[in-house]
Amino acid sequence: MSEPRPVVGVDLGGTKIFSLVATAEGQVLGEDRRPTQAEEGRDAVIGRLVDSVRRAMGEANVTTGEIAGVGISTPGPCDPERGVVTGPPNLPGWRDVPLTQLVSDAMGVPVLLENDAAAAAYGELHFGAGQGCRHLVYVTLGTGIGGGIIIDGRIYGGASGAAGEIGHLVIVEDGPPCGCGNRGCVEALASGLAIAREAAAAVRGGRSPMLAELAGDAPPTAELVLQAATRGDSVSREIIERAGHYLGLGLVGLLNCFNPEALILGGGLLGLGDLYLGPAVRIAREGAFDQVVADVRITEAKLGGRAGALGAAALISAREQR
Amino acid sequence: MSEPRPVVGVDLGGTKIFSLVATAEGQVLGEDRRPTQAEEGRDAVIGRLVDSVRRAMGEANVTTGEIAGVGISTPGPCDPERGVVTGPPNLPGWRDVPLTQLVSDAMGVPVLLENDAAAAAYGELHFGAGQGCRHLVYVTLGTGIGGGIIIDGRIYGGASGAAGEIGHLVIVEDGPPCGCGNRGCVEALASGLAIAREAAAAVRGGRSPMLAELAGDAPPTAELVLQAATRGDSVSREIIERAGHYLGLGLVGLLNCFNPEALILGGGLLGLGDLYLGPAVRIAREGAFDQVVADVRITEAKLGGRAGALGAAALISAREQR
Repeated sequence: MSEPRPVVGVDLGGTKIFSLVATAEGQVLGEDRRPTQAEEGRDAVIGRLVDSVRRAMGEANVTTGEIAGVGISTPGPCDPERGVVTGPPNLPGWRDVPLTQLVSDAMGVPVLLENDAAAAAYGELHFGAGQGCRHLVYVTLGTGIGGGIIIDGRIYGGASGAAGEIGHLVIVEDGPPCGCGNRGCVEALASGLAIAREAAAAVRGGRSPMLAELAGDAPPTAELVLQAATRGDSVSREIIERAGHYLGLGLVGLLNCFNPEALILGGGLLGLGDLYLGPAVRIAREGAFDQVVADVRITEAKLGGRAGALGAAALISAREQR
Repeated sequence: MSEPRPVVGVDLGGTKIFSLVATAEGQVLGEDRRPTQAEEGRDAVIGRLVDSVRRAMGEANVTTGEIAGVGISTPGPCDPERGVVTGPPNLPGWRDVPLTQLVSDAMGVPVLLENDAAAAAYGELHFGAGQGCRHLVYVTLGTGIGGGIIIDGRIYGGASGAAGEIGHLVIVEDGPPCGCGNRGCVEALASGLAIAREAAAAVRGGRSPMLAELAGDAPPTAELVLQAATRGDSVSREIIERAGHYLGLGLVGLLNCFNPEALILGGGLLGLGDLYLGPAVRIAREGAFDQVVADVRITEAKLGGRAGALGAAALISAREQR
């Protein structure tokens, strides 16, 4: 087999496009970041994505003929097998878009796509906190809560590429309504949205003057709740700890179902630190089976915002090496 | 490759040993059933297991030299890779027993073991309700609630062979205590034990004279609750429906995590029929993601009490064909 070629990874998000060129070993040779401007519509976004890839390739000083292909991490739901973005809520107007075909036509190289949480899981497996694992579960903690599952070193997508919806384990019967239509899901209790909802209720109820002052006229975000907690606001502190507690109850189920070698926590809510992750990890360790706890490494993600793009790039490398 | 040889499957349970000889296609050629008499200790039980296998082989008219090996379905926890039964609660005194070695020494053929829920899942995959699937989840509903997971046609055991503890998803925060030490697990709310506990409370509280009469001096079982419900006792009816409701909440999480092609429900509680399974399946279908629900077949197990032994036998066939 010849020397593995450089690969391109793209993280296509609702607000930004991030492209990188990397070696098969994950060394980044060039990058580009630009706003998605999703409101300009599908074709404009795809054009910008291709421009972003070309820019990263320019920085890496590689040509189209030299790369093995382009892997794209896209918001779910999508269908990796057909290469179609089926209808992501944060890319308005995208409905059954054959993204791999369109980008492949524009660039003349092989293209694949994978849903963002699965791509990030694969990135962490190859270059981050999951190196050396066969089975791992990656949980992304942000506005929502998602997950990616790696089994035997490969992404497990399930029957329709929808596996890993870890935010939608029910943990509180008749709990708060969730975006999925159900009630009491992990996402409805432990996500950034859940923290913001509880914070708004605290402001409305006059229970946290500090949070009210920090937020001003805008609805309070998870970040603001952390600020208030750091400044000693006990209500804000409780909101974050409570969310961490619920996350922990969800992790118990995950650990008992998947018995993974590593449980990797990623996403923006890592910024909430120990106030959030402390109770989550404690409850997970206390609640799951002893053997399962003994055999799992619970750890934070290492690749940050690059996980999705690096994972998508690694998928291209893996395909080339088959 | 030569003609696949007949295989032996054994279901070693806390109360009975069931052995069968089958063709690689799952046709049963001979069977034996006898009590485990676990109280007589490990060596007596292993002797009885070997006798049972020999009896089934006699009925099938095959000799030790003609079979490919013996697969044993054992109560968890166990370690299939090392062939060790680590410490099943219903085989008292068994602690780190090298069962495959002991049976192999006694019989002079290859032996493997697998935990009972995983073996049953594998049996259903090959010969029962899961035929043709790549990914399936099998849930066993009895005194406790367990599960077996098949991914890409193979048993998924996780890091330590403990994956699939589906009964230990938390669905009710601060719910009733569970045998696992946690609270509010599916098993604590939807199992035979949970139904019996609620029934005992109803009898104690004087809420179900019919159940009290049926039970007499003994604690009411799930079976008695069904009898009372069938005779029109509304409290008993509610106990079963409520358990089904909780089972449904657990199934939502399972479906959203695994996105399986089939969800197979097995075990003794199937006898509770629609009163139990009706709400469970309805809630699962309503609560899981549309795509996941569209792509899953939710179905009852087909192999009944033979699933574990047939699955263990199929594992021997699969090993022979590798």
